[in-house]
Amino acid sequence: MNMVLRTAVAMSLLTLFLGAQNSSNKASKASKTYTPEYNEKGELLGNADYRQWVFLSSGMDMSYSPNAMPGHSTFDNVFVNPEAYQKFLKTGTWPDKTVLVLEVREAGSKASINKSGHFQTGEVEGLEVHVKDEARFPGKWAFFGFGEGDTGKLIPQTASCYSCHQEHAAVDTTFVQFYPTLLKLAQEKGTLSSNYQKEEKSK
Amino acid sequence: MNMVLRTAVAMSLLTLFLGAQNSSNKASKASKTYTPEYNEKGELLGNADYRQWVFLSSGMDMSYSPNAMPGHSTFDNVFVNPEAYQKFLKTGTWPDKTVLVLEVREAGSKASINKSGHFQTGEVEGLEVHVKDEARFPGKWAFFGFGEGDTGKLIPQTASCYSCHQEHAAVDTTFVQFYPTLLKLAQEKGTLSSNYQKEEKSK
Repeated sequence: MNMVLRTAVAMSLLTLFLGAQNSSNKASKASKTYTPEYNEKGELLGNADYRQWVFLSSGMDMSYSPNAMPGHSTFDNVFVNPEAYQKFLKTGTWPDKTVLVLEVREAGSKASINKSGHFQTGEVEGLEVHVKDEARFPGKWAFFGFGEGDTGKLIPQTASCYSCHQEHAAVDTTFVQFYPTLLKLAQEKGTLSSNYQKEEKSK
Repeated sequence: MNMVLRTAVAMSLLTLFLGAQNSSNKASKASKTYTPEYNEKGELLGNADYRQWVFLSSGMDMSYSPNAMPGHSTFDNVFVNPEAYQKFLKTGTWPDKTVLVLEVREAGSKASINKSGHFQTGEVEGLEVHVKDEARFPGKWAFFGFGEGDTGKLIPQTASCYSCHQEHAAVDTTFVQFYPTLLKLAQEKGTLSSNYQKEEKSK
């Protein structure tokens, strides 16, 4: 996921994505056979259950730019649909219809009994989705940014997130180098990208 | 979960808890009806599938002590068994047989293309489990620390983690104030502890 291209997300998103958990029993079962869906404008439909998908990792204030000027601190949580995760365990790479959700949350520090360090707050500041839909997208994958609505807008294939993921990601244009339980699997299965292997060797 | 009482965990733990994922299809299905099990010494049996449970939140370098002297940085990930999570969504509190896993991971910073901030590494430094087993434990809950073996040792009820959770936790001795998607639910369902509400009012 691209850490630079973060779409500002209004509080309505929080309601749409998290508020639906109360009535999510039916949806939860449906999520086991989750497949990406789009509206007539080509926008990706949101999924209220992504917080029940498989967690890959969380980072804090990560930046790929040497000139990053951090403002307030944020956490980035990454989730993947469970059926794609099961396939990754077997093959070391992602199947068609993989959906990775990057959720950006504001960090808090001094609250309740916490005295130092950071915890995650209820404030979702951004949501970006990386979808593998081989027949639909050139390059097989696409990024969608969720703003104020409940559908994600396609980020143009000319955006830097595509080339950055292509050039630096460890597995199939995804940053598995930052997903600690998957990196070892990809090494064992021999699915690390040649670009990533070259970069690591040159260090 | 108590951030102070962290049990040092050898690399063998990583193998036991994460390495089993390759052959976890059967276990994954079994985990949907997960229930805590113990050996004849009263130790809690480990579960290789906790990374496929529901993620609650992740913190970085959190400390409840004003005199914390952080060494290297770590992340704390918290997972809960899915059936307990589903009950929480409906009731705002935890059912019997709830199991919360606190996983402590070493943080990395400058690696691959990351220039600043922190990501999670493959190095698991600690694992602590909080179990609700009403008929088994006085106070209904108990903490277990996982060290070098694949079973967790009971932390004595006299340890400070028990009194700290009793005095400060937002819901049923658990730190729901740091689980952003659950705090709002607990507020709506009216399940916040009286101790927590008093503390928040006095600020």
